[in-house]
Amino acid sequence: MWVVAEKEIAGLVTPDAAFDAVEAVFASMASGDAYNFPVVREAIGYEDALYGFKGGFDKAALNLGLKAGGYWPNNQKHGLINHQSTVFLFDPDTGRVAAAVGGNLLTALRTAAASAVSIKHLAPKGAKVLGMIGAGHQSAFQMKAAARVANFEKVLGWNPHPEMLGRLADTAAELGLPFEAVERDRLGAESDVIISITSAFEPLLLDGHVTGPTHIAAMGTDTKGKQELDSALVARARLFTDEVAQSVSIGEFQHVTAKGLVSEDDVTPIGRVITGDHEGRGSAEITIFDGTGVGLQDLAVAGAVVELAKQQGKAVEVEI
Amino acid sequence: MWVVAEKEIAGLVTPDAAFDAVEAVFASMASGDAYNFPVVREAIGYEDALYGFKGGFDKAALNLGLKAGGYWPNNQKHGLINHQSTVFLFDPDTGRVAAAVGGNLLTALRTAAASAVSIKHLAPKGAKVLGMIGAGHQSAFQMKAAARVANFEKVLGWNPHPEMLGRLADTAAELGLPFEAVERDRLGAESDVIISITSAFEPLLLDGHVTGPTHIAAMGTDTKGKQELDSALVARARLFTDEVAQSVSIGEFQHVTAKGLVSEDDVTPIGRVITGDHEGRGSAEITIFDGTGVGLQDLAVAGAVVELAKQQGKAVEVEI
Repeated sequence: MWVVAEKEIAGLVTPDAAFDAVEAVFASMASGDAYNFPVVREAIGYEDALYGFKGGFDKAALNLGLKAGGYWPNNQKHGLINHQSTVFLFDPDTGRVAAAVGGNLLTALRTAAASAVSIKHLAPKGAKVLGMIGAGHQSAFQMKAAARVANFEKVLGWNPHPEMLGRLADTAAELGLPFEAVERDRLGAESDVIISITSAFEPLLLDGHVTGPTHIAAMGTDTKGKQELDSALVARARLFTDEVAQSVSIGEFQHVTAKGLVSEDDVTPIGRVITGDHEGRGSAEITIFDGTGVGLQDLAVAGAVVELAKQQGKAVEVEI
Repeated sequence: MWVVAEKEIAGLVTPDAAFDAVEAVFASMASGDAYNFPVVREAIGYEDALYGFKGGFDKAALNLGLKAGGYWPNNQKHGLINHQSTVFLFDPDTGRVAAAVGGNLLTALRTAAASAVSIKHLAPKGAKVLGMIGAGHQSAFQMKAAARVANFEKVLGWNPHPEMLGRLADTAAELGLPFEAVERDRLGAESDVIISITSAFEPLLLDGHVTGPTHIAAMGTDTKGKQELDSALVARARLFTDEVAQSVSIGEFQHVTAKGLVSEDDVTPIGRVITGDHEGRGSAEITIFDGTGVGLQDLAVAGAVVELAKQQGKAVEVEI
């Protein structure tokens, strides 16, 4: 078994590599070469932790395995971040474990890559203004990945806790982009692309906020009850996601489908746009990508990581 | 992360240790301290493989994690056994991965331990004759574990393929017990304890075969459609299992519950017998334990393995 430590990931995964791996696996999902297994997600009744497994198999790339881990909200007392995960790859020819890879940074990068893939394929032509809703740890990754796929000239930002907006300002500065903290109505009116990355349980971006051709990547909702976008806004948009079943059960589109405003058939897997099987934005004013996060993304990026780590002598082989 | 290689397991896990770990975790399941997560089990459409995850959490023993792996029927061409699995333990205080343990021998030992636990708690008093149905790889483990918990004086054996019965004869000889290959009616009439460990898709042990006080450990059925015992036999017995939900969905008791001969409430978790909350055999003539195999068994034995391996310098620590 090859082991790639968490500390090696930053030097191994470029945003380009994460983008390519995620775009390819979304295409494989659409073409039927890759599928995700049912997700296991358990509140274990200890340390308020959520723990579980996201697995899948990509027959084209021969990636088989799972990400295991979860959310430990009290980890600060141990000097650790709250999201902790590990990816395990298996040899599809024999069933033997092939690799264990630190999954924390990898998760941040694959999540950021997913919204960037959606922006590449769905943003209005000539998008100039990026709006960010949310200023937590993940927001910086999202902004950086987005900046790679469009020629943004400005970043607007809003967060429920304004004191955290410094992260967005700093990240924009790193990217050489002007940043402005604004109210939501201005953010919605002026942004061509909006990324929402919060843990909200009520809509933050309302229908009235958003005007003009806009692509929204809703990346925060991963649990029953969470919600970032107004249902009326979702109902008038053209809808895309990574995996439809997950989107309508625990993702952003759970609310509009539960209310009967939208049917499952109205939601298109983004892989179909990537493969050219769906026109994408077409004549729609608003497009929304619901990034729910699937195990195949983790496996795809981890698979690339292990190959690079072996080439660069950064993987440790241990007998198991 | 501590890694314990497959080759170390034989020197680390005594049948006693496996028995104690499995008995304790069945008790924890009954008392509500431990629970299994939903099982993921996928026919991945490649190499005819079945792959999946069995996870769980034992709050008393602080074992958290999963066994991942499955069944690769063409593994002989790689010089490997068909069942391949790995157990991953996580730190329940932080969510970080704590150990990876080779799961092949461990699975055989924990499965054997489960039937032995059932024999200890459910066999008729003074049981002298052990009947074995099935003579595959796992049958030797089952017989050895059973011999530890009862004073058997003789082993009877039957297998759909008689040419394989040599394994049972050899194993009995190893245990110093006389062995006789018999037809099923004699096996059912003379055995006080019967272990069935086959991959049958139709009943092998029929109601008419079994007479007198008998305990049956049905260990082979782990999939929809498989069946080892006649439904009429099951319907007149007192029923026990490791996990009721699994037993009535993919275990031996799927058939009698589907036919309405038995309700879920008629099946008792064996942990309740271990904790003294249920009388066990009582006045029943026939008892049946359906061993479906749960993730918590793997975690319990793996947890014990890792502690022993660390003490004996047989665990390798690798940064992840």
